[in-house]
Amino acid sequence: MKRQVFDCQPGCPVESTLQIISGKWKSVILYHLLQEKVCHFGSLQRQLVNCSRRMLALQLKKLEQDQIIEKITYQDQPFKTEYRLTLQGQTLKPVILAMAVWGEKYNRLQKNK
Amino acid sequence: MKRQVFDCQPGCPVESTLQIISGKWKSVILYHLLQEKVCHFGSLQRQLVNCSRRMLALQLKKLEQDQIIEKITYQDQPFKTEYRLTLQGQTLKPVILAMAVWGEKYNRLQKNK
Repeated sequence: MKRQVFDCQPGCPVESTLQIISGKWKSVILYHLLQEKVCHFGSLQRQLVNCSRRMLALQLKKLEQDQIIEKITYQDQPFKTEYRLTLQGQTLKPVILAMAVWGEKYNRLQKNK
Repeated sequence: MKRQVFDCQPGCPVESTLQIISGKWKSVILYHLLQEKVCHFGSLQRQLVNCSRRMLALQLKKLEQDQIIEKITYQDQPFKTEYRLTLQGQTLKPVILAMAVWGEKYNRLQKNK
């Protein structure tokens, strides 16, 4: 998955960030991993009620390819897969939390219209 | 332009924010408006060198519809149009700046690979 470096002028690095976090459910997955440190596939699926199994697997794969999350597989029975943020992924914390705060205010405003 | 309220569960408000700032060049436009307070269409166009006139006009229109920016038109000659952030648009500052900081680090990492 070819990633771009957006730095042709001031402001462009924001696009570099957007390319990593954009994509249905990705930012919600990142939010949960920030809160819970480690998540099993099953627990993510239970929490992202409107997200299909296939979509969840796809977005986790992309985040893994971008080295934002890492996947740990336990061979013992029952078979278990865990996901957690990489060091680079953890540096997204200010971005995701700022977006969560803004989004909550936006939601309140929209509901009061 | 129908906007959604994403609040079915924790983390969803991040998606509410993404729907507003996602879209080619939007976050770069917001970055410039945060830095320069007021921008003419022409100055934005000069600064966003790889952005077509049509794309710039489209993204400005969407930001205006979302009440993130406002457009001021001066009838005197020569005809002049200015853009600035609304109060709600200004509250995006922590989000855009956090994304710019993260994007700059990401760009440096990618170039050193």
